[in-house]
Amino acid sequence: MRTTIFYITIFICSFVSAQVLHSDIAVQLKDKGLDELAAYDMLKVLTTTVGQRLSGSDGYEKAVVWGKSELEKAGADSVWLEPVMVPKWVRGNIENATATSGNKKYELTICALGGSIGTPKNGVTGKVIEVHSFEEVKTLGVKAKGKIIFYNRPFDKTKVNTGEAYGGAVNQRSNGAIEASKVGAVGVLVRSMTNAIDDEPHTGAMRYADSIPKIPAAAISTIDANLLSDLLKKEKSVSVTLQLSAKTFADVPSFNVIGELRGTEFPKEVILVGGHLDSWDKGTGAHDDGSGVAQSIEVIRLIKAINVKPKRTIRVVLFANEENGLRGARAYAARENNKIEKHIAAIESDAGGFLPHGFGVSTDSIKFEKIKSYASLLEIVGAEKIRQGGGGADIGTLQASGAAMIGLNPDSQRYFDYHHSNHDTIDKVHPRELELGAISMSILAWVIAQDGL
Amino acid sequence: MRTTIFYITIFICSFVSAQVLHSDIAVQLKDKGLDELAAYDMLKVLTTTVGQRLSGSDGYEKAVVWGKSELEKAGADSVWLEPVMVPKWVRGNIENATATSGNKKYELTICALGGSIGTPKNGVTGKVIEVHSFEEVKTLGVKAKGKIIFYNRPFDKTKVNTGEAYGGAVNQRSNGAIEASKVGAVGVLVRSMTNAIDDEPHTGAMRYADSIPKIPAAAISTIDANLLSDLLKKEKSVSVTLQLSAKTFADVPSFNVIGELRGTEFPKEVILVGGHLDSWDKGTGAHDDGSGVAQSIEVIRLIKAINVKPKRTIRVVLFANEENGLRGARAYAARENNKIEKHIAAIESDAGGFLPHGFGVSTDSIKFEKIKSYASLLEIVGAEKIRQGGGGADIGTLQASGAAMIGLNPDSQRYFDYHHSNHDTIDKVHPRELELGAISMSILAWVIAQDGL
Repeated sequence: MRTTIFYITIFICSFVSAQVLHSDIAVQLKDKGLDELAAYDMLKVLTTTVGQRLSGSDGYEKAVVWGKSELEKAGADSVWLEPVMVPKWVRGNIENATATSGNKKYELTICALGGSIGTPKNGVTGKVIEVHSFEEVKTLGVKAKGKIIFYNRPFDKTKVNTGEAYGGAVNQRSNGAIEASKVGAVGVLVRSMTNAIDDEPHTGAMRYADSIPKIPAAAISTIDANLLSDLLKKEKSVSVTLQLSAKTFADVPSFNVIGELRGTEFPKEVILVGGHLDSWDKGTGAHDDGSGVAQSIEVIRLIKAINVKPKRTIRVVLFANEENGLRGARAYAARENNKIEKHIAAIESDAGGFLPHGFGVSTDSIKFEKIKSYASLLEIVGAEKIRQGGGGADIGTLQASGAAMIGLNPDSQRYFDYHHSNHDTIDKVHPRELELGAISMSILAWVIAQDGL
Repeated sequence: MRTTIFYITIFICSFVSAQVLHSDIAVQLKDKGLDELAAYDMLKVLTTTVGQRLSGSDGYEKAVVWGKSELEKAGADSVWLEPVMVPKWVRGNIENATATSGNKKYELTICALGGSIGTPKNGVTGKVIEVHSFEEVKTLGVKAKGKIIFYNRPFDKTKVNTGEAYGGAVNQRSNGAIEASKVGAVGVLVRSMTNAIDDEPHTGAMRYADSIPKIPAAAISTIDANLLSDLLKKEKSVSVTLQLSAKTFADVPSFNVIGELRGTEFPKEVILVGGHLDSWDKGTGAHDDGSGVAQSIEVIRLIKAINVKPKRTIRVVLFANEENGLRGARAYAARENNKIEKHIAAIESDAGGFLPHGFGVSTDSIKFEKIKSYASLLEIVGAEKIRQGGGGADIGTLQASGAAMIGLNPDSQRYFDYHHSNHDTIDKVHPRELELGAISMSILAWVIAQDGL
């Protein structure tokens, strides 16, 4: 009996002391983070000195040099580059669309969707048919032949989480060209993926199917989508001429950028923290995903800055080619080393550098409850909402490893105002909001590194 | 037994049906609000067509006309103006400060604090002493005679809630002139109340004590506060000449603007919803407190728009003179009608039009638990954090009435970047964030109007 009580006491004491230690560390990470706001300083350099960094571009090469240097400065024990072949798609200088209705012409604000083919020099011209769903496209049948299909289903504004609104609209962008081509259309215009009503087109990935003829596809600003829709209501016939100079080249060599704090006790157990280093060629990828990159590096910097060492390895991976291929994530998942290491958790930040609400977690119920028990630590930065389901595109490739998939959930109200457009620049990022996300990630990475999962 | 079961069943059914109804209404308010985003449209007119609206100014008179018209358009059953005398302080055209150190001169970016006296035409000149607390001022003793006291205690950046950082610094602005004058200083410069490091001075209320000589007081931008502090570290002697043309005039007549939806069953039980219609003369009071004003009017508009009628009266009060006097709130609290009406709750929005987290509530524990039980309804807009303690400056005058004091708690990260400065303009307000606050207030006002407290 005495022995039992003795061991129970020891157990409780060690538990309490671990908890006290965790909350001490959490406060230190918060204070250091908010005092120095270093994630913002990193992001400012990435978005202004490096700038756009689409896969295969000079910008991405510069970003690799920058990322390696920042991880070294942050105090990583080791930093390395992981080779990967990535696609190279180039927008080119020409992207025009002119609507003609009777004697009137309207210049539309558009941009090529990522991956689109270019048009012949004089463009493709067709009468415009507005649709809101693939079902509508199917029912068009032969009427669609030679036409430009205009996808104009807007975001559902009543969704509080704008990510859900995006999810409800984005198939128009990703698969719209395939569905339109099946019925003989010659081109596609897609309403920009945003709640904002402005004159800025939002690019993003689109795909083709091998067996279906490729047709050019462009995003149109929401103001001009509304204008075109109004024109179609008033006029029997509106045609559009679409000119794009976009082109896909052969794959080129590139890199994931990786740095880590090696675990002092279980170095082969890895907590991955990451975001993607590539961006679209519109804007400078400040929120998508410069924020996730800067926050991930900040995790290492903060833990080093408060002078503690994790028991398990905390590894930052800045993934190549999330936007148009996921090649970086696939290469990382296929590493030989994964056979001798065990990824126990992967934390991704790829939803913008806004105020963090918490994390979405995909794992078994026991691990979920363990992660949820850390909510009280995350409460000091207001990031205590731990929800079932979540992760991210890049870490998704690690699912088979059994690692808990964890995605940072920042607030979504402003994200799609900027996403994949010229508006995604550093002036849209608030230093404290960005840092609070980095601190949340640091706290969670730290406690998992200490306690395991 | 049967009878008991019968009544229990009736009780449960009516409870469930009330709850279902509440959640139906909450969803309707959310959908209508996010679809129309009308609070933003109102705020845009208030901040651009009306603009600045300091008590006693032409701007405030225009705001009264605007507010009455908006409440009528929103569908209030009745709208009226409540007379109140307010102070009239005018900044004037001159506010300069020049630092002299050796042969060098530096123009400092400053503005008069609200309520400050002006200086003689050629200004007041004195050597500068930097301090961080009133204790330091006291220990200066005779050394302070003829000097300019420079209060430079910054915000504590490590506070996640920037309101706490403000609370820890603002006595320098409000009471700094009194404390400096006690030891013979001739003027006061106060570091702007913000975490932002920029060249924008932030005004705000300061006070004098009857028995202490009045000395002029100005806010200095954080960049120039840092510059002045650096100068003082390098040079033995730095003097400043401060010129202000500010002046206080006799009180002038003004108005609170009030509109209500009369209760169908208990019209004399009132749920007050409000913000303040006046603003400082810097910027256009977009967040402080145009947001609270637009959100309050939106509460009436939304409830009318979904075509329901509250059992108890929901009254919107747009208070006069919060910033430099609270005269509007005091006049409202002193109304004769308060003897025959009962205010059961008062909801104030005066912390900016940012993403709402929830509400702070000051009331007894039974009412607190009842309000907290509505958290699940507020969860649909992410505003479910119901916390002990809260209210607002204007509704604070109603405390003796026994009404539950309820303050909307929006996120605070960006508020003091803009607060009381030229930066507080409509471009800093996000339509959806603003509307989510208005929806939260509408849901809470509605359920209290139906269920009582």
